[in-house]
Amino acid sequence: MTNLACVAKRCLLSILLLLGVAAASAQGADQLPSWNEGKAKQAIIAFVEGAVAEGSADFVPVPERIAVFDNDGTLWPEQPLYFQLLFALDRIKALAPQHPEWKDKEPFASLLRGDVKAALASGEPAIMQIVMATHSGMTTDEFDQIVSDWIASAKHPKTGRLYTEMAYQPMLEVLSYLRTNGFKTFIVSGGGIDFMRPWTEKVYGIPPEQIVGSSGKTSFEMRDGAPLLMKLPEINFIDDKAGKPVGIHQHIGRRPIAAFGNSDGDLQMLQWTCSGPGPHFCLYVHHTDGEREWAYDRQSSIGRLDKGLDAAADSGWTVVDMKKDWNRVFAFGK
Amino acid sequence: MTNLACVAKRCLLSILLLLGVAAASAQGADQLPSWNEGKAKQAIIAFVEGAVAEGSADFVPVPERIAVFDNDGTLWPEQPLYFQLLFALDRIKALAPQHPEWKDKEPFASLLRGDVKAALASGEPAIMQIVMATHSGMTTDEFDQIVSDWIASAKHPKTGRLYTEMAYQPMLEVLSYLRTNGFKTFIVSGGGIDFMRPWTEKVYGIPPEQIVGSSGKTSFEMRDGAPLLMKLPEINFIDDKAGKPVGIHQHIGRRPIAAFGNSDGDLQMLQWTCSGPGPHFCLYVHHTDGEREWAYDRQSSIGRLDKGLDAAADSGWTVVDMKKDWNRVFAFGK
Repeated sequence: MTNLACVAKRCLLSILLLLGVAAASAQGADQLPSWNEGKAKQAIIAFVEGAVAEGSADFVPVPERIAVFDNDGTLWPEQPLYFQLLFALDRIKALAPQHPEWKDKEPFASLLRGDVKAALASGEPAIMQIVMATHSGMTTDEFDQIVSDWIASAKHPKTGRLYTEMAYQPMLEVLSYLRTNGFKTFIVSGGGIDFMRPWTEKVYGIPPEQIVGSSGKTSFEMRDGAPLLMKLPEINFIDDKAGKPVGIHQHIGRRPIAAFGNSDGDLQMLQWTCSGPGPHFCLYVHHTDGEREWAYDRQSSIGRLDKGLDAAADSGWTVVDMKKDWNRVFAFGK
Repeated sequence: MTNLACVAKRCLLSILLLLGVAAASAQGADQLPSWNEGKAKQAIIAFVEGAVAEGSADFVPVPERIAVFDNDGTLWPEQPLYFQLLFALDRIKALAPQHPEWKDKEPFASLLRGDVKAALASGEPAIMQIVMATHSGMTTDEFDQIVSDWIASAKHPKTGRLYTEMAYQPMLEVLSYLRTNGFKTFIVSGGGIDFMRPWTEKVYGIPPEQIVGSSGKTSFEMRDGAPLLMKLPEINFIDDKAGKPVGIHQHIGRRPIAAFGNSDGDLQMLQWTCSGPGPHFCLYVHHTDGEREWAYDRQSSIGRLDKGLDAAADSGWTVVDMKKDWNRVFAFGK
C-alpha cells in the first residue's frame, strides 16, 4: 500500500512538472544563478515573492502581473552601435549595387567607403535616411525574412558572436523567473518593432504580440489578387522617452507593475510604472563593466544614463551594478 | 489493487480539470450548445479539430493559433446605433451643464433637444465632433472610470438590458471553445480601444493587451510630480477596413489563422487572414433575424455587408445565418 501511494505521488509530480508548474523559489531552487548575492538580487526576489503571496498586502492578481523590458542595453548590448543600426549598415552595403546614386550621396557615400563616423556625423537625420532606405519599400513578410537571415548569420564586431548569443544571461533568468511566477513579459523598446519580432520569441521567450517598439507606417495593398502589407518610408511611432508610456497604453492597455531599463530613454516608462497605486518594481541596469561588456553612463551618446541615475536614487529604484551584481554576463563567457 | 489504481486515476483527472485542461470535443461534450447543427457549426469544429490534430496536415502550433474578432455586430449588436455612440450621446447630456455654448452649436444643440437624427445628419463630421467632445480632455484613468460607470448602469433602448448582457451567447461559446483549444483570442474593432478595454476581460475573457481598436493620441505629462496620460482631441489610428490588417500587424505582429466579422469593414481583415499560407478560417455573421435581433445587410448604413457577402461566396468563407444557425442569441432570452 505504501508503495502504491508512492507511485501515485510520483505520477502526480511528473504531471505537474510536465504542465510547467515550476517549483517555487521557497523550495530552495535558485532561479537567478548568474546574479551575485546582494541588494539587487534580493530586491527582485522580494518583489516577486510579494506579488505571488496570496493574502499579503503585496499580492497582485495574475492578469495584472505585467512586466516591461527595454531591449538595447537592458536585454542585450548596444555598443559600439545599436545592433539594428549595424543591421542597417550591412543592408546598405548589400543594396548598394541597386543604388549607383549612393556613391555621391551622403550618408551613403561615406558608409560605402567604410567611414561610419563620417556617415553618422550629422546624427539623427543621417540615421533616419539609413533606416528609411533599409526598412521600407518591401512587404512586411519580405522584411521579416531579411531580418531572420541577418540575425542567423551576422557576427558582432567585438565578440565575433551571433547577436542573439549576446542576450544578457542574468536578464534571461529574470524573464524566466517572472514568467514562472505568472508574469506576462513585454519588450518596450525604442528599436523597430519589425526588427525585433522575428527572433524575440526564440531568444527571450517573448512572442511578437508582446513587443512594443518604434514603427514605420504600412499600407494594405492587393498584388495579383493577394493582399500584402507594404512598409512605407514614413514614421508611425517613436517608442522612446515620453513615447514609452504612450506605447504601453496603446499596446498593453494597463499599467505595468515592473519595469526594467538602462537609459534616460526608459525614465518615463519607469516613472509611469512606479507611480501606480499597487506594488511595483523599477530597475536600472548600470553598465559598469568595461572588461566583460562596456562601461558608460552620464556622458555616453548611446544609452545615456544621467537623469535616470538621479531619479533612481531619489525614488529608491534598484540599480544593477553589472560588474558587481552579475557573475556572468553572456552564456558563452564569464 | 484495482480500487487503488482507480483512486489514482480519479486524482489525476481532478488535477487536469483544476489546471484547466478541458475535455476534448472528441470526448463528446458540446461546447457550442447555442449553435444549431448545420454547416456553420460543422465548419468551426472541423477547423479547430484540424488545428489541434498533431501530425495532421491541418495542425497549427499553439503560438500561431491567433484568432481575431470584430466587436460591433460580431460579438454584440450595433443597432439602433453603435453602442459607443450611445455612450457618447449620454456623455453629451451629462457634460452639457459645463458647456452652455452647446445650446447654439451643432451637432450638440440638436442632440440636447433629443433630435439624434438631425444631430447626425451630416454624418462623419458630426460623429467626430461628438467623439472628440466626449473622449478627450481627461486622463486615461479618468476615461476608464467614466466608461466603467456607464457600462455598469446604462441600458439598451430596445431590450432594456445592460449592454454587456447583450454579448451574443453563440459567439461567447466560440471564444471559449477556441481558447480551450490553445487559441489566443483578440478583438480587432473599429471601436475605440479605450472604450472597450475596461470591460472586455469580464465579458469576453479577452484582456486589455489583446484589444486592437481605433484610438486618439495621448500625451505623457507630469501633474504635481505624478505622471499621467492625457487623452488629446486628435485621431491616432482608425482600425477599420484596410486599417484592420495594419492594426493587426502593428499590434499582434503575426497573421491570424481565424477571423470573425460581420460587415464590409471586416473584409480586409478576412482577406488578410485567409490568404495566409497554412490552415485558416474566415466567418461572417449575417444579421438575418429581425425578431430576436436585427435584420440588415447590403443596404444598411450601420454594419453594411455587401462586398463581404460576395467575397464570402467567392472564397468559400463560412456565413452564419443568425436566424437559422443560432438557437439562442442572448443569454437572457431565446
